[in-house]
Amino acid sequence: MIDLIAENSMIAQLTRGFLRSPLQRNRIHESDAELLEVSADGSFLAVTTDTVAEEIALGLYSEPYLAGWMVVMANMSDLAAVGAAPLGILLSELFPTNFAQEEIDRLQQGIHDACDACGTFVLGGDTNIGDRLILTGCAIGTVSAGTALRRSGVRPGDLVYSTGRLGLGNAFALNQLAGYPTDKSAVVYKPSARLIQGRTIRGIATACMDTSDGMLATLDQLMRLNGVGFRVDADLESYFDPDALRIARLRKISPWLMLAGQHGEFELLFTVPSDGETMLRAAAERDGWLPIRIGVATAQPGIDINLNGRFVRVPGVRIRNLMANVGHSITAYLQGLFAIDKEIQKGVSEHVATV
Amino acid sequence: MIDLIAENSMIAQLTRGFLRSPLQRNRIHESDAELLEVSADGSFLAVTTDTVAEEIALGLYSEPYLAGWMVVMANMSDLAAVGAAPLGILLSELFPTNFAQEEIDRLQQGIHDACDACGTFVLGGDTNIGDRLILTGCAIGTVSAGTALRRSGVRPGDLVYSTGRLGLGNAFALNQLAGYPTDKSAVVYKPSARLIQGRTIRGIATACMDTSDGMLATLDQLMRLNGVGFRVDADLESYFDPDALRIARLRKISPWLMLAGQHGEFELLFTVPSDGETMLRAAAERDGWLPIRIGVATAQPGIDINLNGRFVRVPGVRIRNLMANVGHSITAYLQGLFAIDKEIQKGVSEHVATV
Repeated sequence: MIDLIAENSMIAQLTRGFLRSPLQRNRIHESDAELLEVSADGSFLAVTTDTVAEEIALGLYSEPYLAGWMVVMANMSDLAAVGAAPLGILLSELFPTNFAQEEIDRLQQGIHDACDACGTFVLGGDTNIGDRLILTGCAIGTVSAGTALRRSGVRPGDLVYSTGRLGLGNAFALNQLAGYPTDKSAVVYKPSARLIQGRTIRGIATACMDTSDGMLATLDQLMRLNGVGFRVDADLESYFDPDALRIARLRKISPWLMLAGQHGEFELLFTVPSDGETMLRAAAERDGWLPIRIGVATAQPGIDINLNGRFVRVPGVRIRNLMANVGHSITAYLQGLFAIDKEIQKGVSEHVATV
Repeated sequence: MIDLIAENSMIAQLTRGFLRSPLQRNRIHESDAELLEVSADGSFLAVTTDTVAEEIALGLYSEPYLAGWMVVMANMSDLAAVGAAPLGILLSELFPTNFAQEEIDRLQQGIHDACDACGTFVLGGDTNIGDRLILTGCAIGTVSAGTALRRSGVRPGDLVYSTGRLGLGNAFALNQLAGYPTDKSAVVYKPSARLIQGRTIRGIATACMDTSDGMLATLDQLMRLNGVGFRVDADLESYFDPDALRIARLRKISPWLMLAGQHGEFELLFTVPSDGETMLRAAAERDGWLPIRIGVATAQPGIDINLNGRFVRVPGVRIRNLMANVGHSITAYLQGLFAIDKEIQKGVSEHVATV
């Protein structure tokens, strides 16, 4: 089931011939950051790499400050999702030949500010010259072995939570890519890695994954890895970012598409046992944040979301493979999403056998 | 003196606003990999990142297998140069949209074989789609704190060694880039990170740096960091790669240019105290390799090399800034190197005050 998703099958194919390190404590796909047992003191090293390239090439991060901020946050978010505390980040920056000094300064300021917000440091890096701006980060952190969070571990009946409101990543992407006028539709997109939250839920959550690819892709991946389903029964308004709802209404787009697009908001989605809610709420209150309950894990695979009281089955494979299937054309991608929405609104949904 | 080199001043400028981690045990420029004190057991974490982009864009690594091999080896070489043992590597791969499955397979085979040769593992990664192939690695290793190698520590009178013969990286680059016919000039370029050698010289070498940017750039950087000079008094033939000499003679190019070009061979250059030679030779013999003595560190800055019995002062600033000064044009870069050679052959060399 996992390899029905183009990205998963590509990873499987790329890593086919590779051996795993005997020190590695996670399987492929099993965690947002790689977990390594390197010391005898009961802690894991958590390491991850993430490149910001397509978002810049598409014009999504047209502002260098945002590109710098995002390469740090995308990597830190992976550490957050395993419950790790960051040691720092290495950065490889590929600058276009015509990149102005002032653009470099804004880029570095974004990197600096994001590190500052995470209480972490740039440890080192590499610079190269190329056709366009490409930023790669590699974040390193530590997490005590017994409490490292993974994507696996969800059981039917577990409650599903988010560390924050959802949909803003796609609302921002729609504004940037669909060429809307910026007056009424402006949103501020500057996500923060949920490092505190990831550490709060260690020992409480049964599984965790960040929403870097949007909420539905995250639930879909958790579904495939755990052999469960998800029933998102909360009212949309209870977990939606108000700006995401506003943009959807302004543009007359079904709000759920703000969960389906693949530009996420870097919250953590996590599951807790049905009797773990009290412990979660107390721990989160102690650490100064509020978990948002969005649904429940079910025994049967499939993702159903509550759209104004009506439950709709989400076609995970079609949505997640859409970008690859349209050859990475943004226009065709948006058209494809709107077409899926049209079918869903008519009550036509993907056959369960293909989830 | 360090900031006379364009790359150094760029790094200084990029990192200007950044704070250093309190756990970091190396200064900027001071080591090939970053050193972090993260555990109480007396070991450092060594981390580094290196991107292979320009070499692919220029046609230097036109074969995907070599590109895959090189991204692993370039990163492992940085670990070797601090004396670290690798834990593994993270890889971020940016594939061009038209990249064939068969090319991906060859690329991954190169990555696999390089990891195998280093006794290490791919830990995880990221994939993206872009205009052309770009590969970024992030290698992680460990080294016992007291024996980590750095670029700093050279004292006048120290002997300078290489872990292997030099010049092949530039001979290969010349063949690939200058459009020579391949019949007589073919060379096999497949460097191996000197991980064993880096571990041999821990506790013996006073400083170490890899020759990823060519021998002269390496000596020049060690000179600037340590406030010393280098007298390369060995006969060229005693430390030159035979294939590099052969290509130089075939093309009627002064052999020393094979040390001046910025495409290196990933050997380690290191210094040992003048009374440390016996210990070095014994340790290297135990580990199955032969150090090659190339020269000696001097009190006065400047790099002098022995060209058939005549010592020539190398214009380090001009050579190292050449690529940036010609706007990254390969034709202009080669012409610039040939022009510098012409001046040197006439006995004209850079004024000492500008080294």
